[in-house]
Amino acid sequence: MQPNLYKVEILIIGNEIITGLVPDTNSGVITRRLEMLGIPVTRHVAVGDEEEDITDAVQQALARVDCVILTGGLGATHDDITKRVLAQMFDSAWVTDEKVKRQIEKLFRAREMETPQAAYLQAEVPEQATVLYNAKGTAPGLLFEKDGRRVYCLPGVPLEVEYLLETHIVPHLEPMGTVKMQHRILKTTGVPESTLWEEIGPVAALEEHVKVASLPSHLGVRIRFTATGKDWQETAAKLDAAEKLLRQKIDHHIFAVDDETLEDRIGNLLKKSQKTLAVAESCTGGLIAHRLTTVPGSSDYFLEGAVTYSNEAKQARLGVDPALIEAHGAVSPEVAIAMAEGIRRQAGSEFGLSVTGIAGPTGGTAHKPVGLTFIAVSGPQGTRCERFLLHQDRVRNQQRAAQAALNLLRLYLFDES
Amino acid sequence: MQPNLYKVEILIIGNEIITGLVPDTNSGVITRRLEMLGIPVTRHVAVGDEEEDITDAVQQALARVDCVILTGGLGATHDDITKRVLAQMFDSAWVTDEKVKRQIEKLFRAREMETPQAAYLQAEVPEQATVLYNAKGTAPGLLFEKDGRRVYCLPGVPLEVEYLLETHIVPHLEPMGTVKMQHRILKTTGVPESTLWEEIGPVAALEEHVKVASLPSHLGVRIRFTATGKDWQETAAKLDAAEKLLRQKIDHHIFAVDDETLEDRIGNLLKKSQKTLAVAESCTGGLIAHRLTTVPGSSDYFLEGAVTYSNEAKQARLGVDPALIEAHGAVSPEVAIAMAEGIRRQAGSEFGLSVTGIAGPTGGTAHKPVGLTFIAVSGPQGTRCERFLLHQDRVRNQQRAAQAALNLLRLYLFDES
Repeated sequence: MQPNLYKVEILIIGNEIITGLVPDTNSGVITRRLEMLGIPVTRHVAVGDEEEDITDAVQQALARVDCVILTGGLGATHDDITKRVLAQMFDSAWVTDEKVKRQIEKLFRAREMETPQAAYLQAEVPEQATVLYNAKGTAPGLLFEKDGRRVYCLPGVPLEVEYLLETHIVPHLEPMGTVKMQHRILKTTGVPESTLWEEIGPVAALEEHVKVASLPSHLGVRIRFTATGKDWQETAAKLDAAEKLLRQKIDHHIFAVDDETLEDRIGNLLKKSQKTLAVAESCTGGLIAHRLTTVPGSSDYFLEGAVTYSNEAKQARLGVDPALIEAHGAVSPEVAIAMAEGIRRQAGSEFGLSVTGIAGPTGGTAHKPVGLTFIAVSGPQGTRCERFLLHQDRVRNQQRAAQAALNLLRLYLFDES
Repeated sequence: MQPNLYKVEILIIGNEIITGLVPDTNSGVITRRLEMLGIPVTRHVAVGDEEEDITDAVQQALARVDCVILTGGLGATHDDITKRVLAQMFDSAWVTDEKVKRQIEKLFRAREMETPQAAYLQAEVPEQATVLYNAKGTAPGLLFEKDGRRVYCLPGVPLEVEYLLETHIVPHLEPMGTVKMQHRILKTTGVPESTLWEEIGPVAALEEHVKVASLPSHLGVRIRFTATGKDWQETAAKLDAAEKLLRQKIDHHIFAVDDETLEDRIGNLLKKSQKTLAVAESCTGGLIAHRLTTVPGSSDYFLEGAVTYSNEAKQARLGVDPALIEAHGAVSPEVAIAMAEGIRRQAGSEFGLSVTGIAGPTGGTAHKPVGLTFIAVSGPQGTRCERFLLHQDRVRNQQRAAQAALNLLRLYLFDES
């Protein structure tokens, strides 16, 4: 690490963190954002809501680095002491910030509530500090400066950390970075990690442009490229070159890039072709419909979902013949197909998607073990059905079944287009 | 915190942690385990694989506390430098540990592989250290001691951390705990944090028994009690006393304790009364049905869910009169009530729950802004409807609407029982 780099440490304050009750996600978010600007974070420290520990940690950090970003302990409850401790450290008097006060009142008015007396404490700020106005919550951020070193104080709520980081800290710190760094994530699903890398082949060609990381989870493998360069043009060109190489090998496995989700992708495919969709779910219990409807504007193509948990509901809502369930069982390719075709017919949609399976932990048999799942897609080109054998706990099996169903639909739509 | 407590700090070493690539879960696991023994962890620190940072962090920690537990950097790759740095700090020569060597060979034999030369490096240990044998991996843990202070070094793999913690560290440290410590979490929803604490009143009465923490999120406020005592009887008695006091003030807001979820609670209420439930969702898009069906055995009481996104589906699936939608709009108390009563009738369930709202970001008007949501519960005692005005992004509005709906159902079931 070059000695002339501008360095940052992160200090997380809160008994809930130091006692292991709540995992700290803020240090990861802040670190990754600053890394993109070429500013290394060299230490993460977490302490409880104790005056001595906070003072000690801030002073030690300031002795090592140029800038400390701390989160937590800025709320309005009795154990939030960060603001008081910092005001003392920087020997500051107190003032009321009228803009914060008005913002708090506005927030409560928007919720049709009286502003509680305790909320006004948030508008009391140390005179020495620059107030970092917070459109996402009632506690403002604060910036203390001394001898060219900075201490940023943010409330601990992740949404507010992200807002204050982007609005106030990134613009301040961006000029301190020496290189630019940029990531790109290519998301795959439905193929095991080892198979995926066999299909990709040697990574040397990719590594001429980017650093490569493989991030597997139960919902798929994400491939992360990291490019560094003197500016964003250079990093983008390197990422583009690497992505092009990768797509030559495994294009069909890649369902989305960066923040795009599988349900976003499906939404885009359906919007483009102006087609509609309806979903019939058994073991996933509504998760597929929920994922589809997290996408803004999904009402344009998503008509309805049926969570047909009981056999009666499969019959009444989807027109699945009880004789079919009797003959093959509710978890069978025959019933999955009947469900997909049934919801398509009932809803009058171009596509019907269905899932039936045994999520567990109970309900399995020797012939039909826990995790057995059938997924069907019905559309103008006919009906496709696939069998899956999942092997995790109930909630992960539901998540994997939903992911597999959406991916099967994506591949069907992709073939259509 | 009493000054005579035996105190521990945790030091996490690794570039993957300090660059935000991998979240650190080890400090939470270690902290929670030691806390139960009455041994407080007072600081978490994370640094990269840099000699100076590691040395500095260990020395500072040893100046503050009795014991440092560090994880990471004990592997066999070139950036794993922890063992070397610690050996230098403790001025130690090197020896080969034959037992570790045999264990490494055994591990590779079990995988039907030759032991690679690099793996033997794991058997080289500082003479000053006590070797903590590791049945879960090739890198042993190490214990350094000086002037009554201890440094435990563990590899970073979570599974190995848990094994070494339980096998070597807990037995060593258990006698150092002077008290037992126990938590209890009381979960509330539907009431803002400041209002909740106004209803609770002065915390002094609670603090006679326990320490109190307030943990807000967009789904509600969790209240955490921490009790200490000479044994588990005493801690449980203190938690019970505090819970009783709290319930005198806000019993109706508390939906669950510790690991129980809102959907668990509803499942228990329905099972106890042997009643069934069906759900009709618009803006939540299946999330309520999904949450209900994450509970094992939910098929006993959950009959079906209808995700009626389009007006046509509301009419065809729930029998909602189109004239009602025409007169009041799809997002109205009239339609919410018709949906709850409709799904109850269609499914033949004792209870029907419905949600209709505008999740955003589009679809709002001056009269019906984004976030406007109506929730209805229909049951043997009639139908109740409530209006909510949510104010976050689409996904959080969906999550809050689902939480509010389940809570309204809980209160209805509670009144019934």
